[in-house]
Amino acid sequence: MLHMSHPSSRRQFMGQSAGLLAAMGLLNANFGPLERQLRADEPALDLISADIKRLITRQATPYNAEPPAPELTSQWLTPTRSLYVRSHGKIPRIDEKSFRLSISGLVERPVTFTLPELQERFPATSTLATMVCAGNRRNEFALGGRKAPGVPWDVGAIGTCDWQGVSLAQVLKHCGVKAEAKHIWFEGLDAVEGHGDPFPFGASIPLEKAMQEQPGEETLLAWGMNGDPLLPEHGFPLRNVVPGYIGARSVKWLAKIIVSDQPSPNFFVQDVYKVVYDDKPESTANAAPIMEFILNSAITEIRRFDNNLRIRGFALAQGSLGNAIERVEISTDRGKNWQPARIITAPGKNTWSLWSATIPAEGVKTVTVRAFDRAGNSQPESQKFNIKGYQLNSWHTLPVAGAGQGA
Amino acid sequence: MLHMSHPSSRRQFMGQSAGLLAAMGLLNANFGPLERQLRADEPALDLISADIKRLITRQATPYNAEPPAPELTSQWLTPTRSLYVRSHGKIPRIDEKSFRLSISGLVERPVTFTLPELQERFPATSTLATMVCAGNRRNEFALGGRKAPGVPWDVGAIGTCDWQGVSLAQVLKHCGVKAEAKHIWFEGLDAVEGHGDPFPFGASIPLEKAMQEQPGEETLLAWGMNGDPLLPEHGFPLRNVVPGYIGARSVKWLAKIIVSDQPSPNFFVQDVYKVVYDDKPESTANAAPIMEFILNSAITEIRRFDNNLRIRGFALAQGSLGNAIERVEISTDRGKNWQPARIITAPGKNTWSLWSATIPAEGVKTVTVRAFDRAGNSQPESQKFNIKGYQLNSWHTLPVAGAGQGA
Repeated sequence: MLHMSHPSSRRQFMGQSAGLLAAMGLLNANFGPLERQLRADEPALDLISADIKRLITRQATPYNAEPPAPELTSQWLTPTRSLYVRSHGKIPRIDEKSFRLSISGLVERPVTFTLPELQERFPATSTLATMVCAGNRRNEFALGGRKAPGVPWDVGAIGTCDWQGVSLAQVLKHCGVKAEAKHIWFEGLDAVEGHGDPFPFGASIPLEKAMQEQPGEETLLAWGMNGDPLLPEHGFPLRNVVPGYIGARSVKWLAKIIVSDQPSPNFFVQDVYKVVYDDKPESTANAAPIMEFILNSAITEIRRFDNNLRIRGFALAQGSLGNAIERVEISTDRGKNWQPARIITAPGKNTWSLWSATIPAEGVKTVTVRAFDRAGNSQPESQKFNIKGYQLNSWHTLPVAGAGQGA
Repeated sequence: MLHMSHPSSRRQFMGQSAGLLAAMGLLNANFGPLERQLRADEPALDLISADIKRLITRQATPYNAEPPAPELTSQWLTPTRSLYVRSHGKIPRIDEKSFRLSISGLVERPVTFTLPELQERFPATSTLATMVCAGNRRNEFALGGRKAPGVPWDVGAIGTCDWQGVSLAQVLKHCGVKAEAKHIWFEGLDAVEGHGDPFPFGASIPLEKAMQEQPGEETLLAWGMNGDPLLPEHGFPLRNVVPGYIGARSVKWLAKIIVSDQPSPNFFVQDVYKVVYDDKPESTANAAPIMEFILNSAITEIRRFDNNLRIRGFALAQGSLGNAIERVEISTDRGKNWQPARIITAPGKNTWSLWSATIPAEGVKTVTVRAFDRAGNSQPESQKFNIKGYQLNSWHTLPVAGAGQGA
């Protein structure tokens, strides 16, 4: 048996800025009464939880890492040790005792909760949801001749977890949302540097999405992941989880919720997570922030056994209400002919499907995958470059190692 | 907030036979070339994995334990530490290096695999499946005035895990099943005592079931659970997992598969896991072995907050092809009136649904739950006693602590 290593898993991205040793303690002033315990004297990687250090570091500071591709699909539910980490600043260490979540803005009754208060006041619930970075597969833009800036993700900035928390909709109802409210803002306790004064990561989602209470569609304020408390890297002690939306709308170290008639003014809503094709300020200003994740699929593993290739991967339907994967197909001639892959886990709401295929190895130099969802979406053969490198979802092709690289 | 403890979780069943310190090494002779490493000099509980010792012991020897009821539904996917353990003999410690799986009987090509050979020869897959003991809720028979013998399970002999392994159907196809084959037998490496000569636990399933390859319906030969290797208590290094069937058909420490035209003659197929109403030998002989698990639901937690009760639980559809939970209802007047509970996880194939409800606490002395599945099954209000105490699935009622016990 020959195990084909993923072409980019050897690229060990060593980080764009080495130090980031600013006096983080000073930044607490930005968060009002919220306190953090930061260990400012250590480089970021020294703080990473032991289990997570196994991930492939794509950027050292801030810390961004993904699992090796084959590990992604060796089980349906992503173990905590195998979920990608996306951070935009140093990972804060929050003191659970002094932690507070505030809910303010266009509400009848602004409130502040400790974590135990939040856990006591609302019924606990559990939701299966796939988390995926809008920049997943970004490194493939380079194959088209133009490298996109940002974290150079291979296919691993995705994973499916079981999240424990309370319903955002129920918390908002408790506070009494005013009639003019249209958007829910989220703000973390991290500190993003390199864009003027440090500021927290933030996001917002439309009120209509925030009020969803259907199973598999409901936004959580989550303190648990796979039955354990969140790790610091995944937002301890609290984060939101928005099923069906890109990971950037699920804010870690969540401490502030603001109800507004406008989308969040946060840099990551207004400037960053948008698909734009040039760097003109008006192009960015006019583009809508990305919300739903896009239909996608990828090959995570090709193994040879006897005269066959065994191929595995994931597929994820676009994050629209009630959608799910319909079918997955593979091609060995770069898309001229297709054959069905086998979906090995029953399709669910806003959760990925794993698939596999076994085909004769003879003469196969590349394998390509594409998926279709029930909402009628299909993946494009190729895709126009966007300058921030988001939402790459064209057919995913991997070379078969040892077979030569010809078309 | 008042946490209502589950009425039976205080009953610590201390085991039916204390010693069971037979010279287990001798028993290897029963398993032909298969070798085991048993630590025969220690009592069973000393061998239990650290994480699992937290469970409530229902029987010390053989070791049978379940989690506290509220822990069951604090997340959808049961963490390995929270899955009930059902064993019929001492838990064997298997040497992975000398482990072999043999497949024989009505096949064209009998084979024996080491674990690495099995893992290499067939594509790996992952399946979500609820495991449930046919005796779950057995202790409730005592409420009807007649105690059933056997492990006195509360509601916790159930859990939903993500299993990793290979498709039994593909393994059987590899061996070439002969035309006259009708049943697939499974045999473990454990040694059941107390019924004459020690013998391994065994089961069989119909060939038609064994050949299922639909996602969520496919029987696995599994070495992994929730992304980790099996623990000894859950069958290390190999077990089968039959989605939709009672746990007794999923054999741990699986070492022999035999293809036959008859059901397995094993004691646990022919005599034990059957619903019978008297102890006449012909009643047992004529009863069919239980295969599919039954529609069921239970309350796992009642918490009071302010003037409300928060109720949580699970529901599981009967294990028939493509079935799923349709709705869950609760009653506060022992079944005169019903109201819908909220299903908080999207229903899946052969996996449980979690549900919750919040109701005014005023005057509520008991809460009752019942579920309905898409195949048209409903739970009975009450149920005739069967002497082995299986398949109890009548409405589940819990008293509200502090509210008095009147009807």
